[in-house]
Amino acid sequence: MDIFGKTMYPSLPEWSEILDDVLLNGNQEPIWNLAPPEVDDRPFDAVFVGGGGAGRFGGAFMRARGGRPLVIDKWPFLGGSCPHESCMPHHVFSEVAKELDLAKWFSGQLWFPNFEETKISILQIIELVKEGRSGAHALMNVQTKEQLDVEYVLNATAKVIDRSTVEVAGRRFKCKNLVLSTGVRTTFPDIPGIKLPGVFDFASLLSDLTYEPRRCVIIGGSKVAMEYGSFFQAAGVPTTILTRKPLMTTANLHHVDEDLRRYVVEMMELRGIEIIDGVEPVAVLGEDRATGVRYSKDGRQFDLETDFVFVATGEQPNVSNFVDALGVRLDDRGFIEVNKRMQTSVPGVYAAGDLIGPPMEQFKARHSGCCAARNIMGEDYEWDCEEYPDFLHTTYEVVWCGLSEAEARQKYGRVVKIQLPPDGLPHEHCAFPGGEGTMMLACRFPALTGFAKLVIAADSRKIVGAHYCGSGVKNVFQYLDHLIRRPGGITIDEMGALNELQINELFIQLCRLRSGAEILTDL
Amino acid sequence: MDIFGKTMYPSLPEWSEILDDVLLNGNQEPIWNLAPPEVDDRPFDAVFVGGGGAGRFGGAFMRARGGRPLVIDKWPFLGGSCPHESCMPHHVFSEVAKELDLAKWFSGQLWFPNFEETKISILQIIELVKEGRSGAHALMNVQTKEQLDVEYVLNATAKVIDRSTVEVAGRRFKCKNLVLSTGVRTTFPDIPGIKLPGVFDFASLLSDLTYEPRRCVIIGGSKVAMEYGSFFQAAGVPTTILTRKPLMTTANLHHVDEDLRRYVVEMMELRGIEIIDGVEPVAVLGEDRATGVRYSKDGRQFDLETDFVFVATGEQPNVSNFVDALGVRLDDRGFIEVNKRMQTSVPGVYAAGDLIGPPMEQFKARHSGCCAARNIMGEDYEWDCEEYPDFLHTTYEVVWCGLSEAEARQKYGRVVKIQLPPDGLPHEHCAFPGGEGTMMLACRFPALTGFAKLVIAADSRKIVGAHYCGSGVKNVFQYLDHLIRRPGGITIDEMGALNELQINELFIQLCRLRSGAEILTDL
Repeated sequence: MDIFGKTMYPSLPEWSEILDDVLLNGNQEPIWNLAPPEVDDRPFDAVFVGGGGAGRFGGAFMRARGGRPLVIDKWPFLGGSCPHESCMPHHVFSEVAKELDLAKWFSGQLWFPNFEETKISILQIIELVKEGRSGAHALMNVQTKEQLDVEYVLNATAKVIDRSTVEVAGRRFKCKNLVLSTGVRTTFPDIPGIKLPGVFDFASLLSDLTYEPRRCVIIGGSKVAMEYGSFFQAAGVPTTILTRKPLMTTANLHHVDEDLRRYVVEMMELRGIEIIDGVEPVAVLGEDRATGVRYSKDGRQFDLETDFVFVATGEQPNVSNFVDALGVRLDDRGFIEVNKRMQTSVPGVYAAGDLIGPPMEQFKARHSGCCAARNIMGEDYEWDCEEYPDFLHTTYEVVWCGLSEAEARQKYGRVVKIQLPPDGLPHEHCAFPGGEGTMMLACRFPALTGFAKLVIAADSRKIVGAHYCGSGVKNVFQYLDHLIRRPGGITIDEMGALNELQINELFIQLCRLRSGAEILTDL
Repeated sequence: MDIFGKTMYPSLPEWSEILDDVLLNGNQEPIWNLAPPEVDDRPFDAVFVGGGGAGRFGGAFMRARGGRPLVIDKWPFLGGSCPHESCMPHHVFSEVAKELDLAKWFSGQLWFPNFEETKISILQIIELVKEGRSGAHALMNVQTKEQLDVEYVLNATAKVIDRSTVEVAGRRFKCKNLVLSTGVRTTFPDIPGIKLPGVFDFASLLSDLTYEPRRCVIIGGSKVAMEYGSFFQAAGVPTTILTRKPLMTTANLHHVDEDLRRYVVEMMELRGIEIIDGVEPVAVLGEDRATGVRYSKDGRQFDLETDFVFVATGEQPNVSNFVDALGVRLDDRGFIEVNKRMQTSVPGVYAAGDLIGPPMEQFKARHSGCCAARNIMGEDYEWDCEEYPDFLHTTYEVVWCGLSEAEARQKYGRVVKIQLPPDGLPHEHCAFPGGEGTMMLACRFPALTGFAKLVIAADSRKIVGAHYCGSGVKNVFQYLDHLIRRPGGITIDEMGALNELQINELFIQLCRLRSGAEILTDL
């Protein structure tokens, strides 16, 4: 189907029909949005192999700079896994988990029905996700074509022939550069039974689940394990997480504050999630389908019965294609090695997104795609993601940036903190930090409101870390991270000078309340 | 009761008992937290008359600077009306409104029961508020005493004798300065019937309501009208707002973007709220209690039947005391006139908080109290609140800072915007801006997700305004306002360089997506 020159904007419903035809009916016809030679006959400055966050943003940035990009994706939409099977579903599931959690605590109170009698269907919630994501797909296709003026080929897999040739749907395209951004897939542990029906990951959960799980065992302790586990448990499916290391201690999560971690895990356990660490998965049990999981701990083996196994052990890159065709160098974990210009070991070949390793977050995908585009367009531009704000969901938003308290003490010596609840104060008598989204909990269940900590280097008075579990604050950390890391940083005094929007996450006013003192102390 | 030297921390339950004894049983014994002469015999640097945001923060800041403040409040707790009858209840009601709104849209879907059959009790929700606020009171009393080391007298009304003498509970205290911060109360329109039972404001709603309202008429179009009206309507009480001017156009709200305003009002009307503007209230009807409201519009009179009248016409300052005793000068609206040091017309007398006029928000109360404390302690410090981020709730968070689009066009000429949904794109096909707290709506009811606009001066590339209706973004605007107003501001390019926490309020990544272009255009 050739859509170039057809104005799809604002006709989103047309796009939704096209997408449904692919996603529901299996239409395999490629979607061509290519300028004919009379419109643009320049060679492509780059072909972006993969149109997720990296490819879409990189392509748009290149186009804005006057270049000619071509973005190719196997899916019939741009944006990649994020709006289809990762970020977007995860956020819906996490919101559902939060809502169900509230309904459970207030069971039989106010207007809430008795929670025990509440019928929750995971299949219906998945249907809700599917209903929602096609709108996001349509918008990104429209925006990329009409507003950002980017050429693309969708619903067709790109084959890299060499570093200046890509084949897609029977046509070959020459390009000056390649940007590889084909993402990752779940690493399933290599144990017997892992391919049985009844074993899912975040992707197949959406495409393959046909029954209502009664019991869930999660293999792995990643963010995905915490997020989906919290959802399953909140939806009434008793959930066990089997993990090697305690939650939030994997190498992929940096700067995790121990007090934050403890609160988050305690709150998961309070909701009924069983967390077993120090564990190796041994096998998924069952003949025709999964009926249990066998794991070893402290030299002994245990079996857990379950009708639903969820794998959340991390991801591996989709690189084999490029290694064969291009010989790009991989790092010791199998990700494509790039420098701060996103250049691989092969001249003219760039890589971006999840393919270059963690953190596997949208900001990195998009930034790295744009970084590649800038360099291809002649700018000498370096980008790294050594430091960034991070987050996950349980039934809460869990967010952090900068240093943990322990890291700050090691680096700065004298450190003070602003913390809610303060050390030694029983949380059941302290409804702080309560705020947007936890006000009802604050009134009746103070200990469930959350946890907040601001870490301050006492001598310089600079804020060096922020940590929060609660609600309504996730987006704040995008800006807090910037304020902490901008040249000069931000002091407790400068923070106290901002204008807070009461009732808020409390950092600003607590800084003000404390900042009068010449010698800082904890609050 | 003398509590000085008694460590109340972490024994919050003891405080809760003390507070309950006052608030429920009417115990009128003052609470003395005064250092005896052997501990501190210095004269008071200031007496803060009123221990709300202004008095509590001002007192703490003065103490941190080594001064000796005394804070006096008529209530048995510090923090003022905010944690007792304004911010805190409003936030609980707004959260309830949001939850009920979700339950209504998803009525009979997923796990939600049929909304028509849902029994909602406003009295029970008020009980929830009362349950919650005493914990906040206790914490602020404890924190102010134990952590901030501030002396105070609570549960006793201060009487100002002259500018260096205050009497409370039969004792006279000398002080070098006075800081007046006794807040405001609702201005009830001077119409017949306004004192009938069945007429409430935000304060008496909590203290006096004894029945379940069946029908609500709100007199006034303030933030309070929008917030409480949205709550009543969401709770199943059909609500009419009678207002002079269209909502969000009062002089107290600056920089309101017209597109934002329109979306907010449309969304209220979609929920069933009747908004009648161009109205003058004429009378509350009824003999023993309110049974209706008579209003005039376009020269004609109309009657509305109701069993519940809610007054939200604005507030007036509690100043009469000080005018008589001190002769402080008032402005033309009756608020105490202060300069940027919070000095009144009387030397040694400062004023802070709502008493000095709008905006009546916590940030201003606290800042102005600290500003007074700084000047009293010898610092030459000016503070004003010409510019600040602002917000209100409906069933959404509504937030804005910087300039409206129209203001920006007037000031900068060429202006571009980043907007969701974009102009001309039907919202029912565009689930943006969806994010934390609107993911479920995004999936099934795209048009309900919200509205977002970033205003950019095209030539300088500086962001000059931000406007949002949605969820999960209120606290963001504290920091956005700072970034926009800090020296140098923030450009679309710098904004695009931040690291977003997907799925977020979308500003960061949309700036990046657009910032590649030399000549900026709308997105």
